[in-house]
Amino acid sequence: MLDDSPGTRVDTALAKLGKALEAGEIDAAVNLFRPDGFWRDLVSFTWNIRTLEGQEQIRAMLQSQLAAIKPSHFARDPKEQSTEQGGVTEGWFTFETGVGRGYGHLRFRNGLIWTLLTTLDELKGHEEPKGLARPMGAEHGHDRERKSWKEKREQEQAELGFVTQPEVVIVGGGQGGIALGARLRQLGVPTIIVEKNERPGDSWRKRYKSLCLHDPVWYDHLPYIPFPENWPVFSPKDKMGDWLEMYTKVMELNYWSSTLCKSARYDDKAREWTVIVERDGKEIVLKPKQLVLATGMSGRPNIPKFEGQDVFKGEQHHSSQHPGPDAYRGKKAVVIGSNNSAHDICAALWEAGAEVTMVQRSSTHVARSATLMELGLGPLYSEQAVAAGITTRKADLIFASIPYRLMHEFQMPVQKEIKRRDAKFYDDLEKAGFLHDWGADGSGLTMKYLRRGSGYYIDVGASDLVIDGSIRLKAGSDVERLTENSVVLKDGTELPADLVVYATGYGSMNGWAAELISNEVAEKVGKCWGLGSDTPKDPGPWEGEERNMWKPTQQEALWFHGGNLHQSRHYSQFLALQLKARKEGIPTPVYGLQEVYHKG
Amino acid sequence: MLDDSPGTRVDTALAKLGKALEAGEIDAAVNLFRPDGFWRDLVSFTWNIRTLEGQEQIRAMLQSQLAAIKPSHFARDPKEQSTEQGGVTEGWFTFETGVGRGYGHLRFRNGLIWTLLTTLDELKGHEEPKGLARPMGAEHGHDRERKSWKEKREQEQAELGFVTQPEVVIVGGGQGGIALGARLRQLGVPTIIVEKNERPGDSWRKRYKSLCLHDPVWYDHLPYIPFPENWPVFSPKDKMGDWLEMYTKVMELNYWSSTLCKSARYDDKAREWTVIVERDGKEIVLKPKQLVLATGMSGRPNIPKFEGQDVFKGEQHHSSQHPGPDAYRGKKAVVIGSNNSAHDICAALWEAGAEVTMVQRSSTHVARSATLMELGLGPLYSEQAVAAGITTRKADLIFASIPYRLMHEFQMPVQKEIKRRDAKFYDDLEKAGFLHDWGADGSGLTMKYLRRGSGYYIDVGASDLVIDGSIRLKAGSDVERLTENSVVLKDGTELPADLVVYATGYGSMNGWAAELISNEVAEKVGKCWGLGSDTPKDPGPWEGEERNMWKPTQQEALWFHGGNLHQSRHYSQFLALQLKARKEGIPTPVYGLQEVYHKG
Repeated sequence: MLDDSPGTRVDTALAKLGKALEAGEIDAAVNLFRPDGFWRDLVSFTWNIRTLEGQEQIRAMLQSQLAAIKPSHFARDPKEQSTEQGGVTEGWFTFETGVGRGYGHLRFRNGLIWTLLTTLDELKGHEEPKGLARPMGAEHGHDRERKSWKEKREQEQAELGFVTQPEVVIVGGGQGGIALGARLRQLGVPTIIVEKNERPGDSWRKRYKSLCLHDPVWYDHLPYIPFPENWPVFSPKDKMGDWLEMYTKVMELNYWSSTLCKSARYDDKAREWTVIVERDGKEIVLKPKQLVLATGMSGRPNIPKFEGQDVFKGEQHHSSQHPGPDAYRGKKAVVIGSNNSAHDICAALWEAGAEVTMVQRSSTHVARSATLMELGLGPLYSEQAVAAGITTRKADLIFASIPYRLMHEFQMPVQKEIKRRDAKFYDDLEKAGFLHDWGADGSGLTMKYLRRGSGYYIDVGASDLVIDGSIRLKAGSDVERLTENSVVLKDGTELPADLVVYATGYGSMNGWAAELISNEVAEKVGKCWGLGSDTPKDPGPWEGEERNMWKPTQQEALWFHGGNLHQSRHYSQFLALQLKARKEGIPTPVYGLQEVYHKG
Repeated sequence: MLDDSPGTRVDTALAKLGKALEAGEIDAAVNLFRPDGFWRDLVSFTWNIRTLEGQEQIRAMLQSQLAAIKPSHFARDPKEQSTEQGGVTEGWFTFETGVGRGYGHLRFRNGLIWTLLTTLDELKGHEEPKGLARPMGAEHGHDRERKSWKEKREQEQAELGFVTQPEVVIVGGGQGGIALGARLRQLGVPTIIVEKNERPGDSWRKRYKSLCLHDPVWYDHLPYIPFPENWPVFSPKDKMGDWLEMYTKVMELNYWSSTLCKSARYDDKAREWTVIVERDGKEIVLKPKQLVLATGMSGRPNIPKFEGQDVFKGEQHHSSQHPGPDAYRGKKAVVIGSNNSAHDICAALWEAGAEVTMVQRSSTHVARSATLMELGLGPLYSEQAVAAGITTRKADLIFASIPYRLMHEFQMPVQKEIKRRDAKFYDDLEKAGFLHDWGADGSGLTMKYLRRGSGYYIDVGASDLVIDGSIRLKAGSDVERLTENSVVLKDGTELPADLVVYATGYGSMNGWAAELISNEVAEKVGKCWGLGSDTPKDPGPWEGEERNMWKPTQQEALWFHGGNLHQSRHYSQFLALQLKARKEGIPTPVYGLQEVYHKG
């Protein structure tokens, strides 16, 4: 009797794939995929982050890469269950390339591969010192010249950036810069993180006082040190700040706080950057080989221009500059915008006793936090998922295994269920006049985030205030002008105002490149973020991956890193390995460097 | 066919035990034990830490406790394997008492229980908020009066000790006080930790600069946040200091640093302590219900009195005051003692270029770190153990399951293997004149630690320096007197000295009670530590548990907490539950409060 368990089928599929790839039989390999099959690669085959869609793209990639990558040793991971559901068999595997070890996931039906995920895990000979290979700490024995850990650490801090130059400079020491810095430290890549604030975590601490993370703890772990099991579901901002500060300390990051990055120029001949920073009032010139902008996936604040902004006598600022509500008790506040920041600021102002009006200029998607946590993230990131053996790493890889081309299809049924579950809530919102949408194709929040990074609110309470009128809503009309003491809308409404908050979002990350490097470089690399889905604020053509994020750009040695905590954790692994490979002189033939269609 | 698997046998044994205990049938329960059977209880049955040895002690305990404790629901833990080896069946189980939930381990042979371990895990209605029950963090919804996490934390810090009184004051903010403080915080027991140093971790930082922990990382985890997998095997002291500091911060402990505890008095009528501390130069009076001394399992420094100490013109200090070697390059140093501190200090002085003599007054046990790590701790605390599914918690419970009466028998074969493995090393040591022993009964280091907390060196390199003469050794003669510039031994040897270090150990922890409270109370509670093994420095009678540690003492509301990181982690659970029960007014009938045989 034939053993036809899912595990055996995965074994068979991997054996065929491995044999074809090892033998360089590209046609044989391509024919193992369905015509509509996908291969998503994170750095292991492409030295890039690419999703190849369909047999022809897969063929083209293999023709370019196979000889150089030398894949081998495809084998099912015996520690993970293979499964079969609805005709789709899924499994996990390990593999090697000439220079590294990888981990992968595949789905197939009727014997043909539907989705393949290949990811680079480590570089041979440059493995992280962990587990059995962790450092000894004590140098047993005796040596009259040996230095203590503290002496060595102090020497490093005194010399790096002065006597010796870092391989990498990361501009921006929020969660993204910190997670990447930790990985680079473990890989032995000398790195300086440059951060304008005084302390790690200040980018959280300095925001409005009631802010808590909108994503739950299971989604938010940093690499190496997960949050403990008593950590709150939604981290209060200052607690998160303290965690990042301690993490930076115990992971021994070279974190230059109170340091402003003033400019960066790349020398094509010397192949190094000249980065000028100001630290403690003194200019210091750094000469890294690689420059990472981790200044937040949101770029510079978008502040709309309205007539009368110069005559308005009250206070006006962008949401990113909002100091919190305490000074506005009894004041009249007008908040322009209706996404996350707008809602959070409106609710905090209302709580503090201000009279608040939200000006909603276009429709917004709202998802209630508890529902989203259960239906959206729950299967991968929750206490239940942990109990079911879905570690954070596994959850990240499952999420990564779904091609962006298909992801909205995975999201739509979730949205349907959210709509059903919270039907009364959405009715009430609409009755209150709130303009609500479910995304261009009904795929909801995750796709809005991935496509445009905006256009939604995760409801942690403000929607009830909109519904019951505590937060006054003016929907469907844009701002016409400001007067000395009011905001006048295009429909003629005049809103008296002591305070105007522009919760109007951010530009693209390449705005930072324009500011720090040059407009020329910013235009050369083009816009960051977005999939090219041809939906609002995410114009085509289709890219299939986030533009410019965590992968090579049109500017040599310039990288962008950012996103939420999940992305900071997950993609920092692949960005760190790309940087490490370049440091060690390991060949990194990049396949399919992206074209630039949007200059930002 | 009968299923006679180990699991089934454990089921049967537990069913019988549970039935007898639930029915109050003491004889039936006692008869389930071998005549030489043991029952070790950590707080669940005895509200004490007790090992009952043999049927009569078990009977007496049950006669006293059974009606009050109301045990029930004994059931094998389905997540753990039951095993059988050499006729001994082992298994894990859960159970309940009237007020709590417990976890246990049992070993039996020929159907009779040989060892039983029962431990209290949590109190019903007072479970720690973790996993599914973790706090939400964000208070979703809206409330004009709500305070942010930061505001609440600041309010707590401003009020605790001033407006409100802590339930518990812990004197001593090293690893012990910090681990206990973390558990009490999670249990909602308001606690202040009083520490004389400026920063958490300073008790490590302030020691000699080459110090690294002598126990490996797997043995050293704190509760809640384990060290990451890249943590060094042997933590350098300053790195450990940083970890403790960040831990104190993110666990939100109320840690009063730079604060000196000056005195403590118990009011029997009010049933509260008056603890006077000096903080920032100001005296503050605290009124806790419970006082924990966590001032280090070592008590006050033992400084021997020698003739001529007053005329000696060099520097002389106790090892605990030793500033590190840097100032002694080219100087002549005499170190009195031959245990851990003596070796560490001698090696560091030699490395720094001092001329060092070790004065060994009595024999010492030496175990090489790598051998000890592999053979001694490896089966429970190592990367291999982790890979084999032995979590830190499980390792702690396996270690706890071995009655102290038998533990030396488990240790002897390990020592034999160490002796065989490192035969040349021990030969060389003896050839160098070093007086070496294996403990009173050949049971080596672990038993010396548990019995007397001294008498050994974990070799991390100094022994080679003794062997090759780099560290000069004078063994077998005590000090006669000091002159202006030398140490004269009883055998007439004169050792020129610029520096004398007294690595002569510490007194008992109840010395701290004498200093802070009164001699009367110190004598009432008696000596801390030691099993009563009737071996050197651990006089009988047999106690079966560490004297006064982590359990009620003869002084109401006075507790001692200390030991290595393993003990701080493991026993803080049981001490915290005892303190929580008292706070909540849960009955805590203490069985077998220890007698005092040694006043310290």
